[in-house]
Amino acid sequence: MTPRDNQYQAPLLAQIISTGDEVLTGAVVDSNSAYIASALLDAGLHVVRHVTVGDDAVRLKDLLIEVGQQADITLVTGGLGPTVDDITAAAAADAAGVNLRENADALASIEKFFQRFKRPMNQSDGKQALFPENAEILVNPVGTAPGFTMKIGKCTFFFLPGVPREMKIMLNDTVVPLIQKNFIPQRQRLHYRERQISLFGLPEAAVNEQLILPSKQFKNVKLGMLANFPIIMVKLFAYGSDVESIDADVDNASRLVHETLGEWIFSSTGGTMEAAIGKLLELGNKTVAVAESCTGGRISDMLTNTAGCSDYFLMSAVTYANKAKMEILGVLPETIEAYGAVSEETAREMAIGIRRVSGADYGISTSGIAGPSGGTEEKPVGTICVAVAGPDRVISKRRVLSFNYRTANKDIFAHFALDMLRRELIN
Amino acid sequence: MTPRDNQYQAPLLAQIISTGDEVLTGAVVDSNSAYIASALLDAGLHVVRHVTVGDDAVRLKDLLIEVGQQADITLVTGGLGPTVDDITAAAAADAAGVNLRENADALASIEKFFQRFKRPMNQSDGKQALFPENAEILVNPVGTAPGFTMKIGKCTFFFLPGVPREMKIMLNDTVVPLIQKNFIPQRQRLHYRERQISLFGLPEAAVNEQLILPSKQFKNVKLGMLANFPIIMVKLFAYGSDVESIDADVDNASRLVHETLGEWIFSSTGGTMEAAIGKLLELGNKTVAVAESCTGGRISDMLTNTAGCSDYFLMSAVTYANKAKMEILGVLPETIEAYGAVSEETAREMAIGIRRVSGADYGISTSGIAGPSGGTEEKPVGTICVAVAGPDRVISKRRVLSFNYRTANKDIFAHFALDMLRRELIN
Repeated sequence: MTPRDNQYQAPLLAQIISTGDEVLTGAVVDSNSAYIASALLDAGLHVVRHVTVGDDAVRLKDLLIEVGQQADITLVTGGLGPTVDDITAAAAADAAGVNLRENADALASIEKFFQRFKRPMNQSDGKQALFPENAEILVNPVGTAPGFTMKIGKCTFFFLPGVPREMKIMLNDTVVPLIQKNFIPQRQRLHYRERQISLFGLPEAAVNEQLILPSKQFKNVKLGMLANFPIIMVKLFAYGSDVESIDADVDNASRLVHETLGEWIFSSTGGTMEAAIGKLLELGNKTVAVAESCTGGRISDMLTNTAGCSDYFLMSAVTYANKAKMEILGVLPETIEAYGAVSEETAREMAIGIRRVSGADYGISTSGIAGPSGGTEEKPVGTICVAVAGPDRVISKRRVLSFNYRTANKDIFAHFALDMLRRELIN
Repeated sequence: MTPRDNQYQAPLLAQIISTGDEVLTGAVVDSNSAYIASALLDAGLHVVRHVTVGDDAVRLKDLLIEVGQQADITLVTGGLGPTVDDITAAAAADAAGVNLRENADALASIEKFFQRFKRPMNQSDGKQALFPENAEILVNPVGTAPGFTMKIGKCTFFFLPGVPREMKIMLNDTVVPLIQKNFIPQRQRLHYRERQISLFGLPEAAVNEQLILPSKQFKNVKLGMLANFPIIMVKLFAYGSDVESIDADVDNASRLVHETLGEWIFSSTGGTMEAAIGKLLELGNKTVAVAESCTGGRISDMLTNTAGCSDYFLMSAVTYANKAKMEILGVLPETIEAYGAVSEETAREMAIGIRRVSGADYGISTSGIAGPSGGTEEKPVGTICVAVAGPDRVISKRRVLSFNYRTANKDIFAHFALDMLRRELIN
């Protein structure tokens, strides 16, 4: 081993370029770049920049030349298709100062794809077999457009399709192994760790405020916060060369977050509310049934998203009409008459009713006003009544949680009801 | 009017920069840039590039200097908070070659925010009041960190927080009006049009293949395709200076898409399947009720996402357990015994049962295996049986639609069932 191999070497610098007018104009959110960034970090590269440009051959050529001077490895997605907007191969050839040439293997693979779909191939489809003459082809096992790899300046570029499914398969099966084989062994590998902590019931600003002090004690750990309505996801992440040390740093940061916000945390592994409920029901060997009005089936849908839910989820009645509330759940007409369908009294009878009909240990119910219409001064849009009927007691709450559009209200109503059940289960 | 005012002027070039390790590493998808791009296009700018960099003051400074030579207007998000990672103001000052200075108005506004949340303010929070000395403050009405605007090179930069809610409010209420007031009147304004066409039932590759030929006849219209599983969204978009001409171009492209794929299209306005169903039920003055097994409430949840659904949606029974299928819906024990719960026979009795119990015009039902376990050789994971019981007839279908994870299967099952109802309603 020479001294040079022995000393610390900076990680390879990587950039990501996504092309396409649909991304540039904002018609489509660029989720490819985030996916590629994670994969390249995991492969041991240091990602320093993402860039998006449109279907503009001159701008793309200029960018490829510029990045060719800056980065060691660059992933480019998009613009490999058959239409006139697909200008990536031509821009790459221009940037490297070489010609486009038809690649026989690529042409054969495109022809095969068309035969499979029993469609005639057009002249312009053959365009997808034109590549810069110094490029190596990257096979696309799931679509027509092959990718390619070549050097421009000092940088090795990998060009992949923009279709997420095709890009992901080619990235994982071909590009990352190529990078690891050709580049990583000689370099110091970076490791990446992240922890996702999920909270419900506090606004983002309050979570943010409460974490200002503890985050000052984080060592090497970055704090990300993602409001995935109505959930707040706190992300703790770190990267470095020593796995044990970054693991310890992330553990410590996680402990500080739990000390500050424990009551509101329902998952420390990035899990959903329904998965947390499922785990609690399984642990306690309990079952649940649901009577939904304003949530319209969302609670049942959530609970049945978890595999194995049939062990604890028995049934649900979405009783939108009052007639259904009375006939299926046995809610008394007098209760609805005296207090209204949206009332703690009706919610309690719904929860008791579904518990009785189903034979479950816990019955939960919702009745409220998801909007946009149907609100009154006394019961505005956003009013939600929830009841939980358990083996020992029936509890109910009424709140106004309005987020101005219907699906958001259903979402927060459903989470509010499940969080009431969660707190009852850990009591 | 001078000749110069009279001649065509190129639109102003805009760039978008998002900063933050959480975006750079892919921990968070950058949806801010797409939002900003749409807003700037609408305001009449020509967006040419988005760039993402991490919390790295040197790289950000270099990028600001570079972009300051290229663009006319640049939006920057992120890095305005109180922590050591928030380096945007310092990088901007460096790039412009000026000092940081405390801004009294900004400090007062931050102090006010902390008083509102009744929290002590820390030394480091005051850091958010430090700005490049030639910057103008942009008030943040919903968070602690104010934004700012300043020139670097030939470009006017607007710096906004990275929190989407704060960014959006400041962009719409402050930045876009400022841009329109100060820059747009002197320039030619670009208009943007898009059309969203939603399809269900064809794989993305097939939609792609089928649109190759018609898209060759598009004039000035770009084709975007977004697989928003299990829906394929075809986006047609165009921008130019003559509204009437781009409207006609988009109309024409839309007509070509409908001629090719009409049967699979359920919305020409970017609407959801449930909204399309709701419209058909309202038009026909019909009602619906749902009996769900494997979809677990998703169909009810979807149908009740549409405001006004109580006019046509009566109720739903999520009968996960066989006992519930028999007791609530009247499915015969012999049917389940002879054919199994997952069978067209059981699905038909469920649909007939929920139609009878609810009094609805249409009853629809699902019974299937969402996975990951529960599959057999005869009925693998992904098996779905759907029935629609209407005033005139009962129809049923059995398919295997497997996408390897449970929620995706529930999603496609629910859409498959609703699409069966849709085709029955337009028959």
